[in-house]
Amino acid sequence: MIAAPRVTFFYAPQTRAGGTLALFEELGVDYDLQLLSLKAGTQRAPEYLAINPMGKVPAIVHDGALVAEQPAVFIYLADLYADKGLAPAIGDPLRGPYLRWLVFYGSCFEPAIVDRAMKREPAPASTCPYGTWEQMLDALTAQLAQGPYLFGERFTAADVLWGTALNWTTKFQLVPELPVIRGYIDRVLARPAMQRAMAKDAAFAAQQSA
Amino acid sequence: MIAAPRVTFFYAPQTRAGGTLALFEELGVDYDLQLLSLKAGTQRAPEYLAINPMGKVPAIVHDGALVAEQPAVFIYLADLYADKGLAPAIGDPLRGPYLRWLVFYGSCFEPAIVDRAMKREPAPASTCPYGTWEQMLDALTAQLAQGPYLFGERFTAADVLWGTALNWTTKFQLVPELPVIRGYIDRVLARPAMQRAMAKDAAFAAQQSA
Repeated sequence: MIAAPRVTFFYAPQTRAGGTLALFEELGVDYDLQLLSLKAGTQRAPEYLAINPMGKVPAIVHDGALVAEQPAVFIYLADLYADKGLAPAIGDPLRGPYLRWLVFYGSCFEPAIVDRAMKREPAPASTCPYGTWEQMLDALTAQLAQGPYLFGERFTAADVLWGTALNWTTKFQLVPELPVIRGYIDRVLARPAMQRAMAKDAAFAAQQSA
Repeated sequence: MIAAPRVTFFYAPQTRAGGTLALFEELGVDYDLQLLSLKAGTQRAPEYLAINPMGKVPAIVHDGALVAEQPAVFIYLADLYADKGLAPAIGDPLRGPYLRWLVFYGSCFEPAIVDRAMKREPAPASTCPYGTWEQMLDALTAQLAQGPYLFGERFTAADVLWGTALNWTTKFQLVPELPVIRGYIDRVLARPAMQRAMAKDAAFAAQQSA
């Protein structure tokens, strides 16, 4: 594999960027960190909006191009460092389910979580991207039941995203702490790279609060 | 490239599956069509829920695995038939933007459209996946302004998705028919494969109404 130029990672502690921080730990690759602060509002400052007009983290810049939206960032990074084995390659029978579950996160899970957090009814089934809350949760828990990871024994970048996401959404009581969900979170977070990422995230948060 | 087994495509006319129908036309590959009917509700019948528990189209089954969620289906198919040239390959500088804009469709555009269709306020910026409606639309139109296609001269699978999506969302007056949007839709829909796909979609719809 040809050595790629380093990736610049736009990150703020205790945000959705935590999953990407963990992905970098799991990949074990170097990157240039650009630290933003939700508290100081730097993710909506003109300097950052010129890079990512959505004013969100995570985002990365690689080879001069912005990659934003978590599922896209995950697909991109895991393929860029394919030798780390976190992405089923094109042609691998797991490639389709892997893409499905990464995209499901942004297209179904997040909209369901937003409705839940806002305490508002989902749109009618013909309009709603995730059907009903129960339908979304049932599809997710059925997949988790294939454990230990999302695709059985094979740990992938999708587990980094889902382990992180289910950890904070259960903490905020947006997602019920069913045994199948709790067990999955625990297995993913027990990994040394995930532990390192959480420690780094906490340290950056403490630094910004100081 | 090794000949892959045929893809089974779960489709219903005049739904979001129209984009995938168009992608198959642009790819020029054979597939097995499974025709569902919104009117008859077969996309929520137990037989189909056993395949895709979200009860949505488009979905495909390939090599025994379900791939659902439009951005995932598009990424998967364009990579499966990489020789057709509709996906920037891994390592191509356009790969990141390509993934970003496919995922942006499901993670930002669709949630914005749902709020718009429901005539409800977006969630607060800290929660909302797409910031504000204006932010989402500005990011999109800035990208379209790079025309003729989303990534300049290079036509990709992302244009099939966005051309189709902007066509129906402007028709339903959910998205304003700005010149940059209208011009883009017209350029994409003028392609012979897109014309064939729309004719097929209309014919299937007429057949189900008969």
